[in-house]
Amino acid sequence: MPDVAVIGASMTKFGRREEWVLELLAEAAEACLEDAGVEGTDLDHLYVSNMASGEFEGMTGIPNALAHDIAAMPAYTQRVDQTSSSGGAGTYAAWQSVASGASDMTLLVGAEKMTHRSTGESTDIIASVTHPVEYKHGVTLPSFAGLTARLYLDRFDAPRESLAKVAVKNHENGTRNPHAQFQKEIDVETAMSSPMVADPLRLYDFCPITDGSAAMLFCPADLAREYADEYAVVSGVAGATDTHVVHERADPTTMGGVVDSGRAAYEMAGLDPEDVDVAELHDMFTILEFLQMEGLDLAPKGEAWKEMDRGTTAIDGELPINTSGGLKSKGHPLGASGVGQGYEIYKQLVGEAGDRQVDAEVGLACNVGGFGNCVITTIMEARP
Amino acid sequence: MPDVAVIGASMTKFGRREEWVLELLAEAAEACLEDAGVEGTDLDHLYVSNMASGEFEGMTGIPNALAHDIAAMPAYTQRVDQTSSSGGAGTYAAWQSVASGASDMTLLVGAEKMTHRSTGESTDIIASVTHPVEYKHGVTLPSFAGLTARLYLDRFDAPRESLAKVAVKNHENGTRNPHAQFQKEIDVETAMSSPMVADPLRLYDFCPITDGSAAMLFCPADLAREYADEYAVVSGVAGATDTHVVHERADPTTMGGVVDSGRAAYEMAGLDPEDVDVAELHDMFTILEFLQMEGLDLAPKGEAWKEMDRGTTAIDGELPINTSGGLKSKGHPLGASGVGQGYEIYKQLVGEAGDRQVDAEVGLACNVGGFGNCVITTIMEARP
Repeated sequence: MPDVAVIGASMTKFGRREEWVLELLAEAAEACLEDAGVEGTDLDHLYVSNMASGEFEGMTGIPNALAHDIAAMPAYTQRVDQTSSSGGAGTYAAWQSVASGASDMTLLVGAEKMTHRSTGESTDIIASVTHPVEYKHGVTLPSFAGLTARLYLDRFDAPRESLAKVAVKNHENGTRNPHAQFQKEIDVETAMSSPMVADPLRLYDFCPITDGSAAMLFCPADLAREYADEYAVVSGVAGATDTHVVHERADPTTMGGVVDSGRAAYEMAGLDPEDVDVAELHDMFTILEFLQMEGLDLAPKGEAWKEMDRGTTAIDGELPINTSGGLKSKGHPLGASGVGQGYEIYKQLVGEAGDRQVDAEVGLACNVGGFGNCVITTIMEARP
Repeated sequence: MPDVAVIGASMTKFGRREEWVLELLAEAAEACLEDAGVEGTDLDHLYVSNMASGEFEGMTGIPNALAHDIAAMPAYTQRVDQTSSSGGAGTYAAWQSVASGASDMTLLVGAEKMTHRSTGESTDIIASVTHPVEYKHGVTLPSFAGLTARLYLDRFDAPRESLAKVAVKNHENGTRNPHAQFQKEIDVETAMSSPMVADPLRLYDFCPITDGSAAMLFCPADLAREYADEYAVVSGVAGATDTHVVHERADPTTMGGVVDSGRAAYEMAGLDPEDVDVAELHDMFTILEFLQMEGLDLAPKGEAWKEMDRGTTAIDGELPINTSGGLKSKGHPLGASGVGQGYEIYKQLVGEAGDRQVDAEVGLACNVGGFGNCVITTIMEARP
């Protein structure tokens, strides 16, 4: 089984975009191919991570359309959907395509176009990922987040401000990222006084609704040097589900999918949590950054907020988390988000992260579908 | 890289079903696990082939829901969409998951629930797979089929009745398949006098709109004997795209995706077209059976209709095609169709095809997305 390398990555500006999903996909795909010096005709496989182009735009078959637009025919193509973790699932699919020998050059492009729909419409499309039992009772992902945050703060004696500080940190990182949707710092007071959404969570505890696309290019590691002096290898990647009915979980402050996918990814990579130098976590809601830090053993249970308070997760800390700005500040175009996480880790590992550059040999990305219903954890390492 | 075995398969009754997609998925999944004597908790990966549960039923995240319903947690799960070839794409994904070493037990379940929507609504959802340029001009898949059929009949001097005979043959096979949507024979006169849909194609040249689900279970071949005395191996599987804009194709009577995926699958299997004993072809429209026979070198160019006239493709012929009844008679629940093709080939290879049983060691399935925009060809062989 060949080691799998990442030899290029790209992302479009995330935010409110006028282009539709197909144009966003093509923009990211072309930039990624150019980044690696590869042509569309060099591709064997092309994966498109996208949750809901049919629901958002009435358009399906977008992988076929993209293959046409970037002249990748006769490359095989397919859409990968794992709700908000579609990008992580696409990373896993791309890895499998190369590791299985099916493809020697796989392009993964994730995208979503959302902002042309009203917030209510978008929320309803997103809420359709929850279990029908819960969905029919009006439970949405933000309400799960509110309930979980309340429990976490209470059980672990964490101050409400700790959640606000996640937002402050990630907005600060976002100012260093020209691709991020938001380019402004906020302070704790602003976050704490923003409108209530799902008690105790307020507006600044939530990621925005976003349009955007991101891409990564994969090949066998023994071919990587032909395309790039510095590249990354995917040394660990795994996915895991938790109960689809969220209220059946024994401990809502533990995301089983994070724990299981993380352990499997560490084992595959032969690495420990202490080896991770930089991480992108799925901060769709501020509370999720804590749950993932703890589920991935990057912080002891109930103490992620203390680590953040110590500055461990700041961009100049011991373990910078969400240097990209995270979903919170960079934005969360569903199908693109996991690929955008991979983009950030790749750029950090090859030393092309610009104003956000940290010192990193090992990076981790955790992409969460639903409310932890399915989670994909990816570990990448710098080469050579 | 391990050889990949199929150790079980199932399909629900195809037709107009009262259950929604999640219940259909669970029905097929449970039957498939039972067929192989495997538990949900034995699964590493679970793939759901489905094109449009969001558009048809307002429900997404169905792989997570299915993992929950069959108690497969923490198995990794993901949706595979490649429009009407989602099932073939799922087969390819399942193969990759085992061949890459990511999974030792992968369940693939395909399903679509369509009949609760009007024909117009369903047609519009399906038409969204075409290129936006063509879609906006009102081109639907049936209209492409009509144009192509007219060209084929004219160029190859084929009688109009030859298309009707495809329908007659596949309806006859369908009467032997208890899972098929239609259980009635038709004659050439009935087909030729049915209402015109897209000149020269009439109602009986088209597959119906269908609800249903099908499943297949994959593991490394060296583990297969633990579960089954007789099983099949996937010795060849490949996918390929053609232009997404159909009118750009140089020769509309050649489906490039069929040709390219077929050649790659034969090469991978180390087999020639003459080695194929039984085939399931994607007869969404009667004309497509001819185009795939020719694209896969199962008949000379322009002569598929003559082979059918000779009886070659009848169930008692030299190369039986669509013993299941095909999409034409069995029905075409988009995400399930490619898996249903695999079910038929598997059952033929392990000698469990009941009244449809033919003598076969090598079987081929060809699953067509869009109007040949992406095609997956799978070759399976009987073991031991």
